[in-house]
Amino acid sequence: MKGPDALAIDVGGTRIRAAIVTRDGQLLCRGETATPATLGAKETVECIIALSREVMGAEHAPKVVGICAPGPLDVGRGLALATPTIKGFDAGYPLRDRIAEALALPVFLDHDGHAAALAEWRFGAGRDQQNMVYITVSTGIGGGAIVDGRLQRGRMGMATHVGHMTVAPSGPICMCGNRGCWEALASGPALQAQARRLGFADGKEAFRAARAGEARAIALIADQARWLALGIVNLIHIYSPDCVVIGGGVGEELDLMRGILEEEIEQRALPPFRRTTVHKARLRGNAGLVGAALVGFDGLS
Amino acid sequence: MKGPDALAIDVGGTRIRAAIVTRDGQLLCRGETATPATLGAKETVECIIALSREVMGAEHAPKVVGICAPGPLDVGRGLALATPTIKGFDAGYPLRDRIAEALALPVFLDHDGHAAALAEWRFGAGRDQQNMVYITVSTGIGGGAIVDGRLQRGRMGMATHVGHMTVAPSGPICMCGNRGCWEALASGPALQAQARRLGFADGKEAFRAARAGEARAIALIADQARWLALGIVNLIHIYSPDCVVIGGGVGEELDLMRGILEEEIEQRALPPFRRTTVHKARLRGNAGLVGAALVGFDGLS
Repeated sequence: MKGPDALAIDVGGTRIRAAIVTRDGQLLCRGETATPATLGAKETVECIIALSREVMGAEHAPKVVGICAPGPLDVGRGLALATPTIKGFDAGYPLRDRIAEALALPVFLDHDGHAAALAEWRFGAGRDQQNMVYITVSTGIGGGAIVDGRLQRGRMGMATHVGHMTVAPSGPICMCGNRGCWEALASGPALQAQARRLGFADGKEAFRAARAGEARAIALIADQARWLALGIVNLIHIYSPDCVVIGGGVGEELDLMRGILEEEIEQRALPPFRRTTVHKARLRGNAGLVGAALVGFDGLS
Repeated sequence: MKGPDALAIDVGGTRIRAAIVTRDGQLLCRGETATPATLGAKETVECIIALSREVMGAEHAPKVVGICAPGPLDVGRGLALATPTIKGFDAGYPLRDRIAEALALPVFLDHDGHAAALAEWRFGAGRDQQNMVYITVSTGIGGGAIVDGRLQRGRMGMATHVGHMTVAPSGPICMCGNRGCWEALASGPALQAQARRLGFADGKEAFRAARAGEARAIALIADQARWLALGIVNLIHIYSPDCVVIGGGVGEELDLMRGILEEEIEQRALPPFRRTTVHKARLRGNAGLVGAALVGFDGLS
């Protein structure tokens, strides 16, 4: 666990985060800023570079940069293919090389879900497991899978786009244009829409009301937990994991959903798959940064 | 591609097949018999051993045995956990060790879907690909996935139980007790049930009528192809394969479904996933045997 630190960059549709991260996953210096998501790729990259310089300051001289961003990316070539939440991060925008030119350092790029999965596997809730599925449930549903002790990458590094698994062909229309994608039913915005129909201001208020014992809110959270469980049980049959780790905003409220998730796994999974355990992600808002650093370290080695 | 041959055994719910297979996937001697599926594990194992001895005869002295069977199995410990189609192949029945004791040879066991995936990857339609999803569509839907150049195994070697992915929560009841599993909608029996509703004797007659241009049969096959495509598009997002290889009885009729499958991939997959190609399995009835031999060879090495 020795060697130079990494500059880690986590580019999201809302926030850009950067940090100096050590080989053993410690954050030495961290900063964040709003993503100028509507302006264009050039502006977003300028913002990334400014934040990176601020985080490095005069005292940190990282030897590698790891960056994670929403997909789909072409990981091997370092391109953004079609990120819906950041203007200009599409059509093969050379994100990795733009950062490398500006910082004059080797840069390695990966999907944010893969980075967070690596982080939870090495340092978080999936430590010491050979088989782990990580999902992040927030604006969409993304993730990464460790199978037989390796992160699954697939063609162009695009594996584990689990949010666009169809689970209800006559369900609501997803941002991708299909009906009944898992993320159209079980993500944060799906919960928010249901909460508003019941008169809550937003999803968070529904969670608060459920904690306070309000029956309508409890039923709403239970419904959402069942949709979440449906996709999780699919992934359990597909990956045969030891554990499922849940991050993202909805993951933060896992204690309210855990009972239903475990009940649904017990009822819906084939018997030999029922032992899969469900855990809350441990690294929370830092999973992307720690994972981006791991992507950088792995790239160097 | 040198070394001793393997005795390969493919145990199905209907037929048991055995063969002597060379390192480069050639079948030297092959036999098959009906599975005494309703009698019990002892009878089925006796039948396997008799067929194995017949295939080996006096001239073949294989150094290893590879056996594949329907799951779920505990591959590491060589146990049958809950095979619904063969009586007694459940509750941890020590299938691998029973065969090893009788034949006095090292035996390696794997799921039939994994074995066939290995065979199609090394010698069939997925040759030279780093990422391949193999599915077999017959009585159920099983399969195996190659990701980043490796067969996915997962906890207890049970990965890629794709047939029990829920794709329509209000759909028909599956043999497993859940509603709307992919195999309850897109497998051979599902097609057969729809064919009978339209007055065809069975699925094969519906395929024949579609080939002869009968409109109702064409519409039926198109409907079934759409259900098949829905699950395939899910798997494309999950695994990010270079290609999908389709085997099994329904796979044999792939030419009638290919147009719809490709159209659905084009319409439903996120744009960067649309290049995934679809192929008919090449090894057909021998995929399990060739794959079982590969499991044996891999086990020895």
